[in-house]
Amino acid sequence: MNIAILGFGTVGTGVYKIIKKANRQTKDLHVKYILIRKNKPETMPEMTDNIDQIVKDDSVDVVVEVIGGIEPAHQYILSALRHKKSVITANKAVIAKYMDEFTNVARENNAKFYFESSVGGGIPWIQGLERALRIDDVDKIQGIFNGTSNYILDRMKKDKKSFDEVLLNAQQLGYAEADPSADIDGYDVANKLCISADIAYNTFISPDDNLPVFGIRNISYEDLVAFGKKNLTVKLLGKSDFHDGKFDYAVEPTLCAATSMEANTPDNFNLISLHGNTVGDLKFMGQGAGQLPTANAVIQDILDILQNKAHLERDFNSGFEYVPNLMKSDYVVRSEMDIRNIFAEYQVEMHGDYFEIKDVPTGEMHQLMAIVLKQDGQAFMASYPKEAREVDSDESSEVRWEFSR
Amino acid sequence: MNIAILGFGTVGTGVYKIIKKANRQTKDLHVKYILIRKNKPETMPEMTDNIDQIVKDDSVDVVVEVIGGIEPAHQYILSALRHKKSVITANKAVIAKYMDEFTNVARENNAKFYFESSVGGGIPWIQGLERALRIDDVDKIQGIFNGTSNYILDRMKKDKKSFDEVLLNAQQLGYAEADPSADIDGYDVANKLCISADIAYNTFISPDDNLPVFGIRNISYEDLVAFGKKNLTVKLLGKSDFHDGKFDYAVEPTLCAATSMEANTPDNFNLISLHGNTVGDLKFMGQGAGQLPTANAVIQDILDILQNKAHLERDFNSGFEYVPNLMKSDYVVRSEMDIRNIFAEYQVEMHGDYFEIKDVPTGEMHQLMAIVLKQDGQAFMASYPKEAREVDSDESSEVRWEFSR
Repeated sequence: MNIAILGFGTVGTGVYKIIKKANRQTKDLHVKYILIRKNKPETMPEMTDNIDQIVKDDSVDVVVEVIGGIEPAHQYILSALRHKKSVITANKAVIAKYMDEFTNVARENNAKFYFESSVGGGIPWIQGLERALRIDDVDKIQGIFNGTSNYILDRMKKDKKSFDEVLLNAQQLGYAEADPSADIDGYDVANKLCISADIAYNTFISPDDNLPVFGIRNISYEDLVAFGKKNLTVKLLGKSDFHDGKFDYAVEPTLCAATSMEANTPDNFNLISLHGNTVGDLKFMGQGAGQLPTANAVIQDILDILQNKAHLERDFNSGFEYVPNLMKSDYVVRSEMDIRNIFAEYQVEMHGDYFEIKDVPTGEMHQLMAIVLKQDGQAFMASYPKEAREVDSDESSEVRWEFSR
Repeated sequence: MNIAILGFGTVGTGVYKIIKKANRQTKDLHVKYILIRKNKPETMPEMTDNIDQIVKDDSVDVVVEVIGGIEPAHQYILSALRHKKSVITANKAVIAKYMDEFTNVARENNAKFYFESSVGGGIPWIQGLERALRIDDVDKIQGIFNGTSNYILDRMKKDKKSFDEVLLNAQQLGYAEADPSADIDGYDVANKLCISADIAYNTFISPDDNLPVFGIRNISYEDLVAFGKKNLTVKLLGKSDFHDGKFDYAVEPTLCAATSMEANTPDNFNLISLHGNTVGDLKFMGQGAGQLPTANAVIQDILDILQNKAHLERDFNSGFEYVPNLMKSDYVVRSEMDIRNIFAEYQVEMHGDYFEIKDVPTGEMHQLMAIVLKQDGQAFMASYPKEAREVDSDESSEVRWEFSR
């Protein structure tokens, strides 16, 4: 099986490495091309800067797109599919945006379009979700989808450091990018949750649809201490619930009970969960990024094609509908200003610098919080779901709100 | 696709229920026979007490064995395979004992022998392990493989109750069997770990091979309190490490850091992990038992056969070897007697009623503990791995051993 790798950065190099170290199952994989940028030196015989040479070569079976970004990745993927090549990509941004187009063009050309590595890195999440859907309706997806933000929250708490200190350190170590926005503002999670929801509900939801996304940029070490006193840990979660043909969607900091699996997901790990009507709760934890885990997931997709293990078919015609205010949650907001007039419709309690707001629909909460942010750019919010209040041990149930700095 | 269900208890009924509630992918499944015991009333048209009628019916494609126990399940499975029917079973005891025979007979008859539901219930563990093995060497398996014992340990700690109280309660609720030995003495975990090791190392290891297995029968609430003071939680783990063509194997109570995923696996959930050389750590959590989760896993295997998604082939000829004393760990032992002479070869520290013994090979530890048990039938041991000592927060690192009752 002949493979072309588009892009030879971290993941592309990892794919090449795993294929070269052939085992019994991967020995039939052969890297024929590596697409590099124009004017870069061709240091290996497989290298070319000519995408047409790749897509027009009939001997190429699979194109692995690991360039990243929207263009030219989008056009390269379409071109490969139209030349009846199967495409595997780790590029969550381009998949989330063009999932419907890629799926349709792949079907029209009898090609495969697989993307296990795009969500959860080495975790078999897409495969686990598709497998669950063979039997069950999946009515809940929730997870820690971004390793960088999880690493930052974990180190802040354990090292007693500010957000900025930990971020800078993460950037120096190469765990966070120079422009960290995608990771810390929730857009990376948003893309991964779009991809997951597309599959779970067989409905296309675009990251351009003004979705409720709130990141961790404004969290302080003092917030973590205040939440910790109530045996709560903040995690940046992507989440979606399904109910009667409707689903909601949110990316937001969320208070998790200190004894939950989410709260104890350390370092840069991801933990992604689903609930199905017969299988119940399933949680998948592993390396959500990194060269070899991500490349491993790319190779898994290649092997699925080689071994003719077809993935779930999607047409995005389920008729299920995204409803921003389907679910309600309690929220905690930290703001220097008195926000009670903005949340006048809701029950608001004040605890030191924190407001606890009861039973707010998700979409509504994010809209009102946008108003808060216009006046207080440092304000922070986290959802405070009922599950986080259910604590078993005696000691913790005696602890009351003690927010104050 | 015509299916025969052998046994119509909890899981058999669940399989029937899911098939009857057909969806797009399961609609082609048809239950043709349900095997019931001799002299039981045939209350449904599918029911028969004649196994020969089933195996000799050429229209039967798949036989689902959910009778449990060793015989006649063993003979029924062989008979079905020899009649070229694929067999799916949830019966870990019979698989662990006869994995090599079943695998060989299935291959000779060009039939499938699948058993996803036997380990981890609804968790796609076998599938996840086989998938990891397509690319990686798996050099570590570890997990909470038994929901009943996890439920007992969790309730003891949270409800501050004795082992006997919680066990009785679990039996009344139907979570534990009248004879709880398989669950609490570690034999159920042992079977599941054998099955996992068979696959991971492509070597047959039999549960009859005098393996190191130690259960939780002797744990006291006071033990949990003593360990809790050091921010440790006891979990019954099955574990195996692979190194240079050799692997070890142990089922034993294990001290886990309070912030580990294992320590926070609640109720009757299972959490099973692997480590692969490129994918890193992967953890799978879900319902390890129960009617619908287990039946879900049975149906997943049926769908793999229907959709022609072949599982990993095994011949058990890898040449890898089980070595009882491959790995060392520290152990904690609670005994009324002075055990220092039994562990004379090792460094032993006393802390109240507890002994901490350093760097003992696993197989050796279990042998020496058998000697202790002959004189002190209530003695308890737990392994105390290095990872459990790595605690991040300041507070916990200040806590020293405070074992004393």
